[in-house]
Amino acid sequence: MSRLEELPLRPELRGRTPYGAPQLPAKYRLNTNENPHPLPPELLADLGEALRHAALELNRYPDRDALDLRRDLAAYLTRTSGEPVDAAQVWAANGSNEILQQVLQTFGGAGRRALGFTPSYSMHPIISAGTGTTWVDGHRRADFTIDPDAAAAQVWEVAPDVVFVTSPNNPTGTAVALDTVAALYEATAGVVVVDEAYAEFARTGTASALTLLPGRPRLVVSRTMSKAFGMAGLRLGYLAADPAVVDALQLVRLPYHLSSLTQAAARTALAHTDALLATVDAVRAERDRIVAALPGMGLTSVPSDANFVLVGRFADARAAWQALLDRDVLVRDVGIPGWLRVTAGTAEETDAFLTALGEVAPDHRTTEGG
Amino acid sequence: MSRLEELPLRPELRGRTPYGAPQLPAKYRLNTNENPHPLPPELLADLGEALRHAALELNRYPDRDALDLRRDLAAYLTRTSGEPVDAAQVWAANGSNEILQQVLQTFGGAGRRALGFTPSYSMHPIISAGTGTTWVDGHRRADFTIDPDAAAAQVWEVAPDVVFVTSPNNPTGTAVALDTVAALYEATAGVVVVDEAYAEFARTGTASALTLLPGRPRLVVSRTMSKAFGMAGLRLGYLAADPAVVDALQLVRLPYHLSSLTQAAARTALAHTDALLATVDAVRAERDRIVAALPGMGLTSVPSDANFVLVGRFADARAAWQALLDRDVLVRDVGIPGWLRVTAGTAEETDAFLTALGEVAPDHRTTEGG
Repeated sequence: MSRLEELPLRPELRGRTPYGAPQLPAKYRLNTNENPHPLPPELLADLGEALRHAALELNRYPDRDALDLRRDLAAYLTRTSGEPVDAAQVWAANGSNEILQQVLQTFGGAGRRALGFTPSYSMHPIISAGTGTTWVDGHRRADFTIDPDAAAAQVWEVAPDVVFVTSPNNPTGTAVALDTVAALYEATAGVVVVDEAYAEFARTGTASALTLLPGRPRLVVSRTMSKAFGMAGLRLGYLAADPAVVDALQLVRLPYHLSSLTQAAARTALAHTDALLATVDAVRAERDRIVAALPGMGLTSVPSDANFVLVGRFADARAAWQALLDRDVLVRDVGIPGWLRVTAGTAEETDAFLTALGEVAPDHRTTEGG
Repeated sequence: MSRLEELPLRPELRGRTPYGAPQLPAKYRLNTNENPHPLPPELLADLGEALRHAALELNRYPDRDALDLRRDLAAYLTRTSGEPVDAAQVWAANGSNEILQQVLQTFGGAGRRALGFTPSYSMHPIISAGTGTTWVDGHRRADFTIDPDAAAAQVWEVAPDVVFVTSPNNPTGTAVALDTVAALYEATAGVVVVDEAYAEFARTGTASALTLLPGRPRLVVSRTMSKAFGMAGLRLGYLAADPAVVDALQLVRLPYHLSSLTQAAARTALAHTDALLATVDAVRAERDRIVAALPGMGLTSVPSDANFVLVGRFADARAAWQALLDRDVLVRDVGIPGWLRVTAGTAEETDAFLTALGEVAPDHRTTEGG
């Protein structure tokens, strides 16, 4: 048996470890921003029927262009954003990770640069590395927001080929103002990807970057059905952009990348959009309940437009994470000193988290000022 | 609306067209090597149940490591090859295309080279390009076989980081002798990928490269459930290799790349392996019937271990392809002058193909000698 180091690995992969949250047993799993609400029974019934039907033709290759699914996704985006989106502007893949990988294969790659504002979704630099794209850390203010002028200046200076803006940002939670996205677009000749994985949870009045698409052929808005739709197990990510961007992605997409089962299940879920998104308000209420309880424990949070809250500050985030896990509550140590990320889900989960946090806070909150 | 050329595409993608067989309406679709036999009713019943059950947990991320599925795939390989294969040696992805892409991201990439023996599976150079890997055409003899000495000499000279050997080869059909694979392995310090997508259709006595795995940590054998298993719509490819190779792929795989539905459906299909592979003998019989009928039409074929036959020689393959399509038979023009590839499927399909070919042959077969 050979050791990893003896294989002819690409040099930049040496010494790396695989990405992924620890999959640990815990009663309350609040570490991957899943939607804990069970899927509606009428959806489950329709899914069973749709999948049974799709299975009859499983010996045939799926629709390579997933046209019906893209029509349904376009209709959903049009209805919820108010911005008319056409199927020719939409592309779908196995999770938004694959969407982002295809974007980087098309517009990034060896000899090219991607820039994102750290801390943000940690897969952005990882997928950049996986496609040979050089990663550049963009700057944020101390409160984790993006300073539009400073960010545009940095983009202008670095001249990246791909710029990532996560809005709402993960793991900090705050949505990015559209003016900032527009300013970054003006500052670059590259592609600007607005990762809106958590868009459906945003506070009222937060507009989607979809409304910026007209006249901006280098703008890409990515979405997922893993979060608000509660379909993390389905692996369905998608994007909206100029139809020319969708055409360009055809040059790198693997043919038949999206299985017949995935296409059928995603279309069925989209037919139940209203029932699925009915849980969004409940999740937002739990998020806001977490936020409201923190000051009483001597803790604080970053303003959240997502289904999670970045909670701080702790003297030692890793120790606080372990103390919560000892109380059967698994949250995410996202590597930001002093802070932990917790998923907002059901009322029972919030109760369990706040109880555990109440026990943990006196010993673990920071005693530093500021 | 922007035109593709105005976007900041990677330069090497400019002017390319997307890969994929034309999806044309025809009564007999013999162009993508699908298995036309309907799936067994008892499998369909179990699939319906397994998918209904998996749907209940679709709001949760799938098993990131697909451990149960990998155990089942390992058991299948062990049983059919006689070579003990462990789950730690197996990795699965959305089609063997994604398997090959992950291998190239890990062992190929910018500044590295891949070599394959042309003509072969056309996705090998395309996925190489998509990962920034430089492609080198390996040589074959005029009868499309690989000369082991010449091939090893070329590999030694080019020093590729990844070598592709397709066995049985697509689109020509012939399996590669294991001695040749072993010689290529010795000639390179890179990874050798034996693409065995069609292995189950090989003529009796053809051994799998799985038997070469012991002591060869740089050898990868890739497989698919799209062909013999008749599950093209499922998108399930996999590989067997040294466990260190599987560990290495974790550094580039997208987390949660394999949906819960895919994992559940693939495991269910594997539980019905015997019923699914019962069609393999019937398909081989149709393949051999096609081969046997050709000389009577003044045509010939390349020896086939797959579920397709490369038929020739035509004066103008494109014109012969069109003449067959005019008779409602869609075959594949694979770009080899004088030859067309036809999928072997049901007896009815063979009848239709041979009837059409009988009409087409007099006008389209080559009149050249040799």
